[in-house]
Amino acid sequence: MDAWTLMGFVAGSLTTSGYIPQIIKGYRTKRMHDVSLMMVSILCVGMSLWIVYGISQDDLALIVSNIIGTTFLSVLIAMKFIYNGRDRVKE
Amino acid sequence: MDAWTLMGFVAGSLTTSGYIPQIIKGYRTKRMHDVSLMMVSILCVGMSLWIVYGISQDDLALIVSNIIGTTFLSVLIAMKFIYNGRDRVKE
Repeated sequence: MDAWTLMGFVAGSLTTSGYIPQIIKGYRTKRMHDVSLMMVSILCVGMSLWIVYGISQDDLALIVSNIIGTTFLSVLIAMKFIYNGRDRVKE
Repeated sequence: MDAWTLMGFVAGSLTTSGYIPQIIKGYRTKRMHDVSLMMVSILCVGMSLWIVYGISQDDLALIVSNIIGTTFLSVLIAMKFIYNGRDRVKE
């Protein structure tokens, strides 16, 4: 692995692990009210396309990071539905 | 531009325009309370590294999409500070 591929992995680990604080915050507060469902949905579709693009370019950094990112975004979409349902009961 | 580069641009336009609904939602509600500052910050740093990686790979789709993404994330970070300040006054 050359230095640039390593850098791609560092970039990828940040743009995927970036969603972890949001998952933790959402889980702790049980609130996702201010988080846009449209945002997490569009990002999830976009990242899925990056996986396909990464495969076409034979770019492992792109493929791996976007698979992980898509997984975290799917968790956020699920949390959005679960906690918004609770919000509605409270309001 | 070949079909894969075009696909990269579609992927990139989704993973960058994905932040627009969050900007609109935040601007309308003047609330960013549930949005994790750590998330937007880490994503912003990660995307900056993707720009450098994109330059190293001479990958225009990566470069352009991450420049736009970094811009939107910077807007979200600014909104987070502005609206959280207001939240604190209200609470």
